[in-house]
Amino acid sequence: MTDSPAASDAPPVAAPVAGPAAGPVVGMVGAGQLARMTAQAAIGLGVGFRVLADSPADSAAQVTAGTQVGDYRSVADLRDFAAACDVVTFDHEHVPGDHLAALEKAGAAVRPGAAALRFTQDKLAMRERLAGLGVDCPRFAPVSGIAEVEAFAAGTWPVVLKAVSGGYDGKGVWVCASAADARAVLAHGLALIAEEYVAFDRELAVLAARSPHNQGAVYPVVETVQRDGICREVIAPAPGLAPGRAADAAALALRIAAELDVTGLLAVEMFETSRGLLVNELAMRPHNCGHWTIEGAVTSQFEQHLRAVLDLPLGSPALAAPVTVMANVLGGDDGDVYDRYIHVMAGDPAVKVHMYGKPARPGRKIGHVTVNGYDPVKLADRARRAASYLRWGQEDGE
Amino acid sequence: MTDSPAASDAPPVAAPVAGPAAGPVVGMVGAGQLARMTAQAAIGLGVGFRVLADSPADSAAQVTAGTQVGDYRSVADLRDFAAACDVVTFDHEHVPGDHLAALEKAGAAVRPGAAALRFTQDKLAMRERLAGLGVDCPRFAPVSGIAEVEAFAAGTWPVVLKAVSGGYDGKGVWVCASAADARAVLAHGLALIAEEYVAFDRELAVLAARSPHNQGAVYPVVETVQRDGICREVIAPAPGLAPGRAADAAALALRIAAELDVTGLLAVEMFETSRGLLVNELAMRPHNCGHWTIEGAVTSQFEQHLRAVLDLPLGSPALAAPVTVMANVLGGDDGDVYDRYIHVMAGDPAVKVHMYGKPARPGRKIGHVTVNGYDPVKLADRARRAASYLRWGQEDGE
Repeated sequence: MTDSPAASDAPPVAAPVAGPAAGPVVGMVGAGQLARMTAQAAIGLGVGFRVLADSPADSAAQVTAGTQVGDYRSVADLRDFAAACDVVTFDHEHVPGDHLAALEKAGAAVRPGAAALRFTQDKLAMRERLAGLGVDCPRFAPVSGIAEVEAFAAGTWPVVLKAVSGGYDGKGVWVCASAADARAVLAHGLALIAEEYVAFDRELAVLAARSPHNQGAVYPVVETVQRDGICREVIAPAPGLAPGRAADAAALALRIAAELDVTGLLAVEMFETSRGLLVNELAMRPHNCGHWTIEGAVTSQFEQHLRAVLDLPLGSPALAAPVTVMANVLGGDDGDVYDRYIHVMAGDPAVKVHMYGKPARPGRKIGHVTVNGYDPVKLADRARRAASYLRWGQEDGE
Repeated sequence: MTDSPAASDAPPVAAPVAGPAAGPVVGMVGAGQLARMTAQAAIGLGVGFRVLADSPADSAAQVTAGTQVGDYRSVADLRDFAAACDVVTFDHEHVPGDHLAALEKAGAAVRPGAAALRFTQDKLAMRERLAGLGVDCPRFAPVSGIAEVEAFAAGTWPVVLKAVSGGYDGKGVWVCASAADARAVLAHGLALIAEEYVAFDRELAVLAARSPHNQGAVYPVVETVQRDGICREVIAPAPGLAPGRAADAAALALRIAAELDVTGLLAVEMFETSRGLLVNELAMRPHNCGHWTIEGAVTSQFEQHLRAVLDLPLGSPALAAPVTVMANVLGGDDGDVYDRYIHVMAGDPAVKVHMYGKPARPGRKIGHVTVNGYDPVKLADRARRAASYLRWGQEDGE
């Protein structure tokens, strides 16, 4: 016999209140879509969640009750924020290393820590560290003038230039087809490294998690499809990947996470080439290459990141469906994205729409869609179609 | 070639801002765990979400940026709340019908509407309406004194007494083994109906969704396991259910939703008996019998409710796994539930933990756990074990 619906959640009589649901509070510096999706996971886990946002209009700030507006470049704001959190973690890599060290010195649990984050903030340090570990990477060298770039190129172009940290115009990577291109980049006066342009077969990514207790977990290797320097699709697991190579990639991600003392997530972006896997980039936070895990894995990357930084046992990274495809939704010319939900949802009732509450500037990532199923080609077609419809109004080249 | 991680989310240069991400705002009256889980779904869909909470400490109020504290019994508070929402919907059935009618008259989009909600607020009206539709229900009669109860019993006990609306001591249903039991219930002076005590084989539930455009969708029929009048487990789909009976149950839920002009979700709780399916209760909101859909169905009931009340095309209600089992976590004697996460998560990395941020009063629903897989018996064992561990400190009778 059931209670009446009207009474089903009412507490029994005269029961003592056992105090509030005590759980820790995780604070995320930055309030973009990664923080927004982490907020969803925190609600499910029943742990407190706060964000340090630039503005109340930020993607995560719109939906997070525990929003503090402040400047991640201000150590005072960071200290205020950390004081109300049990663990501090990050939506982006932009917090100055000195500030991170100061927070740690003051006793804050900063995860990942300053020593690990340095390798996402300084590409030269990252390359040198990986080289020291014997990890295969593209050939690289620090460069400070055109002579060094030309020496690095040795007559073979293109050459890739990367800002050691930051960048300009929202970019930090430039593919230079000639010395003239390189001069234009050098003119901005940034610290740069040169890297060989890798003629890769495709791009792969592996997402691992590591906790302070040194527990590790790794998701299946995925294929990432980039166009114009922007991730467009992720196919999980990477179709047709040789089992040995998948195991190597997973082991590599776990090893880097341990060697660099990462706590939380580590995303390793790789090139698959005729000479094997080369590590391209690292990130130590939830990452676009892992959005598929919300529907496609037993534990989403956002929940996994929270579990890792809280030093809880990690969740299963197993697949929840044979194949999952995620496609990013980019902003188009028409900002009224909601008006197009009806078409996307009516056209494919099984596509999962995730929108970030961001203004639809052309080319900006404003959401993503995910589909689960069996055939990566058909799933990619469905995901692309839904993402293109949500974009609308801008030629997509597809 | 990828952008640097530091730059991957930066907008391109000089792009015009196309205005804020314009979407509608859904307001939910009530801020319990149903609103909390609806908030998670609203974040994903990119639609605005507000709750009318009794207190900022309410389950959903803790995690919803758009919280208004107010009294759902106050038409002024309801009007204020509705003024900032495009659609108003409900976490519970307690809003007075007159107030709902007043909101509708003032032009608010109230979904489900007052005329439909009446059938969840007045059990006599519900029974009479279902009887008028020819839907099989337990035998029932309004009763106002012991003579009427005894006449209804005709010497066969137990008899079930139900409050027509509300109840007392958090209960609205009483199984009376004798006339003396019935007298004790009658002494409270509530309007009551008597219902036959159904010797059911098991309890089933069907969850349907209906939109203002009259689109319908129905989830697979589930088995619900109740103990002491509280839902303890849900097994999806109901094991061993005859296909014809599953189809009948699904058709029945869609028919009731259409006949009662429900918008949003309709949960139909049923008894499976030797004489077929009998409808026990109706609810018009996300429901405990549908928590399994978060991991077990393509579209969660919370997203589906939002899509339905927004008149968006409904999502696929298909299974996302062969079998899903959900178990409720009840409060035990020890309120420090978080301290026990480590054991539950280490013991079963694939169990999904959902906690509601509610103080752990003994017997109160404070969370649920879900596991996906193949074997309902093994899954139920895993779910029960995780739920029992989170409860802790109180004899569970298991």
